[in-house]
Amino acid sequence: MIYFQNDYSEGCHPEILAGLNEINSGVYTGYGYDYLTEKTTSLLKNEIKNENIDIHYLGAGTLTNLTAISAFLKPYEAIISSSIGHINTHETGAIEATGHRVVEVFSDDNKLNPDSVEKTYLLHTDEHMVKPKLVYISNSTEAGQIYTKSELVGLRGICDKYGLYLYIDGARMGAALTCAPNDLTLYDISKLADAFYIGGTKNGILFGETLIICNDGLKPFFRYNMKQRGAVIAKTWVVSGQFYYLFKSGLFYGLSKYANNLAQEIYTSLKDFGVDFYSSSPTNQLFPIFHNNVIEKLSGRYLFNEWAVVDKTHTAIRLVTSWATKKEDALKLVGDIKRYHKTV
Amino acid sequence: MIYFQNDYSEGCHPEILAGLNEINSGVYTGYGYDYLTEKTTSLLKNEIKNENIDIHYLGAGTLTNLTAISAFLKPYEAIISSSIGHINTHETGAIEATGHRVVEVFSDDNKLNPDSVEKTYLLHTDEHMVKPKLVYISNSTEAGQIYTKSELVGLRGICDKYGLYLYIDGARMGAALTCAPNDLTLYDISKLADAFYIGGTKNGILFGETLIICNDGLKPFFRYNMKQRGAVIAKTWVVSGQFYYLFKSGLFYGLSKYANNLAQEIYTSLKDFGVDFYSSSPTNQLFPIFHNNVIEKLSGRYLFNEWAVVDKTHTAIRLVTSWATKKEDALKLVGDIKRYHKTV
Amino acid sequence: MIYFQNDYSEGCHPEILAGLNEINSGVYTGYGYDYLTEKTTSLLKNEIKNENIDIHYLGAGTLTNLTAISAFLKPYEAIISSSIGHINTHETGAIEATGHRVVEVFSDDNKLNPDSVEKTYLLHTDEHMVKPKLVYISNSTEAGQIYTKSELVGLRGICDKYGLYLYIDGARMGAALTCAPNDLTLYDISKLADAFYIGGTKNGILFGETLIICNDGLKPFFRYNMKQRGAVIAKTWVVSGQFYYLFKSGLFYGLSKYANNLAQEIYTSLKDFGVDFYSSSPTNQLFPIFHNNVIEKLSGRYLFNEWAVVDKTHTAIRLVTSWATKKEDALKLVGDIKRYHKTV
Amino acid sequence: MIYFQNDYSEGCHPEILAGLNEINSGVYTGYGYDYLTEKTTSLLKNEIKNENIDIHYLGAGTLTNLTAISAFLKPYEAIISSSIGHINTHETGAIEATGHRVVEVFSDDNKLNPDSVEKTYLLHTDEHMVKPKLVYISNSTEAGQIYTKSELVGLRGICDKYGLYLYIDGARMGAALTCAPNDLTLYDISKLADAFYIGGTKNGILFGETLIICNDGLKPFFRYNMKQRGAVIAKTWVVSGQFYYLFKSGLFYGLSKYANNLAQEIYTSLKDFGVDFYSSSPTNQLFPIFHNNVIEKLSGRYLFNEWAVVDKTHTAIRLVTSWATKKEDALKLVGDIKRYHKTV
Repeated sequence: MIYFQNDYSEGCHPEILAGLNEINSGVYTGYGYDYLTEKTTSLLKNEIKNENIDIHYLGAGTLTNLTAISAFLKPYEAIISSSIGHINTHETGAIEATGHRVVEVFSDDNKLNPDSVEKTYLLHTDEHMVKPKLVYISNSTEAGQIYTKSELVGLRGICDKYGLYLYIDGARMGAALTCAPNDLTLYDISKLADAFYIGGTKNGILFGETLIICNDGLKPFFRYNMKQRGAVIAKTWVVSGQFYYLFKSGLFYGLSKYANNLAQEIYTSLKDFGVDFYSSSPTNQLFPIFHNNVIEKLSGRYLFNEWAVVDKTHTAIRLVTSWATKKEDALKLVGDIKRYHKTV
Repeated sequence: MIYFQNDYSEGCHPEILAGLNEINSGVYTGYGYDYLTEKTTSLLKNEIKNENIDIHYLGAGTLTNLTAISAFLKPYEAIISSSIGHINTHETGAIEATGHRVVEVFSDDNKLNPDSVEKTYLLHTDEHMVKPKLVYISNSTEAGQIYTKSELVGLRGICDKYGLYLYIDGARMGAALTCAPNDLTLYDISKLADAFYIGGTKNGILFGETLIICNDGLKPFFRYNMKQRGAVIAKTWVVSGQFYYLFKSGLFYGLSKYANNLAQEIYTSLKDFGVDFYSSSPTNQLFPIFHNNVIEKLSGRYLFNEWAVVDKTHTAIRLVTSWATKKEDALKLVGDIKRYHKTV
Repeated sequence: MIYFQNDYSEGCHPEILAGLNEINSGVYTGYGYDYLTEKTTSLLKNEIKNENIDIHYLGAGTLTNLTAISAFLKPYEAIISSSIGHINTHETGAIEATGHRVVEVFSDDNKLNPDSVEKTYLLHTDEHMVKPKLVYISNSTEAGQIYTKSELVGLRGICDKYGLYLYIDGARMGAALTCAPNDLTLYDISKLADAFYIGGTKNGILFGETLIICNDGLKPFFRYNMKQRGAVIAKTWVVSGQFYYLFKSGLFYGLSKYANNLAQEIYTSLKDFGVDFYSSSPTNQLFPIFHNNVIEKLSGRYLFNEWAVVDKTHTAIRLVTSWATKKEDALKLVGDIKRYHKTV
Repeated sequence: MIYFQNDYSEGCHPEILAGLNEINSGVYTGYGYDYLTEKTTSLLKNEIKNENIDIHYLGAGTLTNLTAISAFLKPYEAIISSSIGHINTHETGAIEATGHRVVEVFSDDNKLNPDSVEKTYLLHTDEHMVKPKLVYISNSTEAGQIYTKSELVGLRGICDKYGLYLYIDGARMGAALTCAPNDLTLYDISKLADAFYIGGTKNGILFGETLIICNDGLKPFFRYNMKQRGAVIAKTWVVSGQFYYLFKSGLFYGLSKYANNLAQEIYTSLKDFGVDFYSSSPTNQLFPIFHNNVIEKLSGRYLFNEWAVVDKTHTAIRLVTSWATKKEDALKLVGDIKRYHKTV
């Protein structure tokens, strides 16, 4: 079977593995107080071009989201999220389990904007309702879209107007920052968001995410929250070390760019062939709509997820590329899709 | 100002007050282990015609909902509720604060039905999503509608199919059971629901709700949950005693019926006059749509809540009657509405 | 049976009942936004001689404690409490259920002092441990002792030194303020504590406690926390109104003083007779040690709780007086105790 | 500096690293549904000689404890733990953050026994107190002691008597099972405990713990709890794969045995030299008492933690060995200690 199911089906990139082999022989102070973690933090601050940030290394995305969000909020404060936001759909109520309500916003483009945030905020008028306090967005989104700089500036504006935090889930931050229409840098994000995370698991390492806290008010005692939620790792350097190798010579961008390009080549081929797409995405996730017969045939050879039922005979599927997807497999996929269409 | 704002603006009914004066001189074992509470429980079991139920007396509706629901569920289990369900809109995330997600269902009639419950349940396919386990409905609903016996039987059926609990918020159970189209009894409800509560606060007592647990599996150790949530009252007999007087000679039904009838008289008058309604309600809440000029004039003399913006010049308001609403005030209201319309 | 079991076995004092009868006929805005609640708040601010406080009316003690404490703390912050503190022993883990650890301090006098607080605070050195943030004391304590002004000043000092909140559970504040050795006023307390509550349930009303927030930083949005925990009462005036009658002409102090005096008369009689006491208390709770045979005989005529096993043949019991305890019953009790001793 | 600070200062054992290099090139289904995880589970079931267990792979110890314990308990249920239990001292209130109280038991040997469990259980008499439901022990304990088979059988007996779960924190299970006085096997443990975990982080792998659920009633839907707490790892095979190499040819036992032996050699040398120990430990943690001057000199060359103040001039320190501790460093340490003593 050929995997187009997600971007975390493989191990880590060979350069990361080489790095792990190198650092494995060291001796380290526990819980992130080691020199390698310190070195990585310096490297990242340099990369982000922002010294005034706190950096934490955690093991997984849901754990990062729930630790950060529950640390930032008072009990009655709530999150505004797109209805397809990861915390709203695929984290088994992890945020609610920390006591907070997720207020969902429905939109055609799967994104939040100043208008939808404001409208949602203003619906909450008194103490009989939760008080929205944190705007949660994913970049790229769970459906592959990205936020442009002007969109993020707009969200920052509405957040400032109402005293809201802007938090960015960057599980696929690499895909966002390296796709064609992107005009954001990590520096921009560190200036516009109160906190965000840079995903590693979906971009070439074994596991791990890097949380960046930009808002001074959210920094103190954060490690207490991490420990309380089980997010402090004894050998933190295993995560920070992987990020060291991911960023020290641009691998982070290179891997994402490769995945994006491959996805967009598939997109162009299918588009030219006449395939319709459920939603448009400039990144490494594609949502083509196929006749169910085509899907059935594809599923004999490829692994992927069904995304949405379009009508009785058509379904949108999700195809994901990664740094490890082979170009020849992408070509094979396109060829098969075209071939299967002829037989429907 | 004349109150049509809600059904809890007044004190308790004179018969309840007389009862309180009578029982005040007793001496009671604390926390609900007293003879008056025991006597009330017997009375209620007799009224419900069901001996196999556990009865608890709590101080308020939100506290009842959060105590019961959090007691019944495992951490990852969720609630299915109408989008206008009280727990979903006006309890400041009380359910989420106990760790559980509320999955909201949108519908035109503000009610749940077997189809919408099944569809919602089936959307939750694996461990990356919460597991719906409890169906929450209000009878009457927050917008005045009721569930008929066949509708409740239908919900029971879908709950049985998927192993779900059926919980009924009865803050306005009196209004539901005494309105014209109702065909349910407390006995029926105790046979169809896993748990429900009978509201007192909105039907003539000072404060208090009676929670009925019908499902044997949900009964053990429930008082531990009550105490942990702060819901055990030292002088529980103050609540149970009020329920004693509410039920011992039918006051519970009489007060609600009076309120319903008055509301329906207003409804008929306004309907005949040509007023449109935002939603239809056979109980003590009405949702007429008026020109904003009419509303402005009304608000100089009456207290009520605005419910929904209909268009630029029209708004739906909520009018609520209670056992304490005077007939003459209802007539005055209808008269004023007609008069104000002429001047628009 | 004659009750010496607790101070909440009876209804409300006749003057409170008369007040309830009077205010019952009013019409009130819901949830505490009514004129009677406003009037009571003015009365209390005047009584406390402190305008810069926020006053909230809640239904019960555990609910008050859990609502206040969880509102004041960040997730990783903990409470320092005496091992016999009510939150540590008799609230079914209500504080832990809101996510916070209670760090218990053992002491012979059942009280906290600057040394024990400091020592406990300093044991928590890093993010692998909770961070103590709130000092919880009860006045009078669960075993009847009180805090003097200099003791409270001392606790305030250590709290200031480490940035801790001082919270006082005043379920029996009346007993504390009216006993012989007391030198504190409500004004003093409002200046020394960050928040405290004045208990009504155990001092002559049907139910209800008044929470006073003194620290400006803890005031904003507190009602959101109340609503989320189910502590907002629709007819708040039923509680605030009772406090109005409790304070408008000194009933609050009078009732407690009566109970204290009666208890101390019993104490003197028993002491003179040679009875030993498990702990000394200047308030309305006494802890005499009796031979088990005496206790068995007493329990045929009186209701009380066993407190602690002293040795194989002796047990300490708890005797509680209230405003409603009759002097003749106290005399009867003393007489019986003496009589039973002769037959052992 | 030479590390005797803990058993997780180094990377993974070379055989584990070789394994990681080998498995890194595979393609895996996400979230633990891969063939390597399946293979490891088979291997472990074979090793434990028990097919009727559920095995889960998590990233860290605190996360494992909080996920498992919160999954097993109802809201009002509590944990009985030794006062030095990891959950009671070094997890920042992680258990309380999930809503549960930890009831601590003080004992000289840092262990629980049937008597102390029973006594603690029976102190909780009614719904005003939490209900103890889970007995938490660590093997080896946080101070290096172990439980023998007969001790564990005793605890199982008292748990059965009162319907309690027995949960074993096995962060240092390897050290326990390979020390001289041990007579337990993984099979025994799987028959006596309701759930336990086998620690990897402290026994030669990069990170990860294996949770074993033995009690059928605790198995269903456990992965929902894992996902909700952020404990599901996208590339679960990175953890399970390390356990595969840890168990496939006995490395798990070999590494622990080496660490234990080295520690016991240090112990014998120091004992013979006349050093006193704060508590006795047959495993890889030692707690010698030294004059503070000796400790000061040691700290110039060695990393270790101070454990307890013994008197004004003496302190107990903790020395920990691991699979990676060099024999020559142990000899150096013993030599230095002896030398420093002469100069005091």
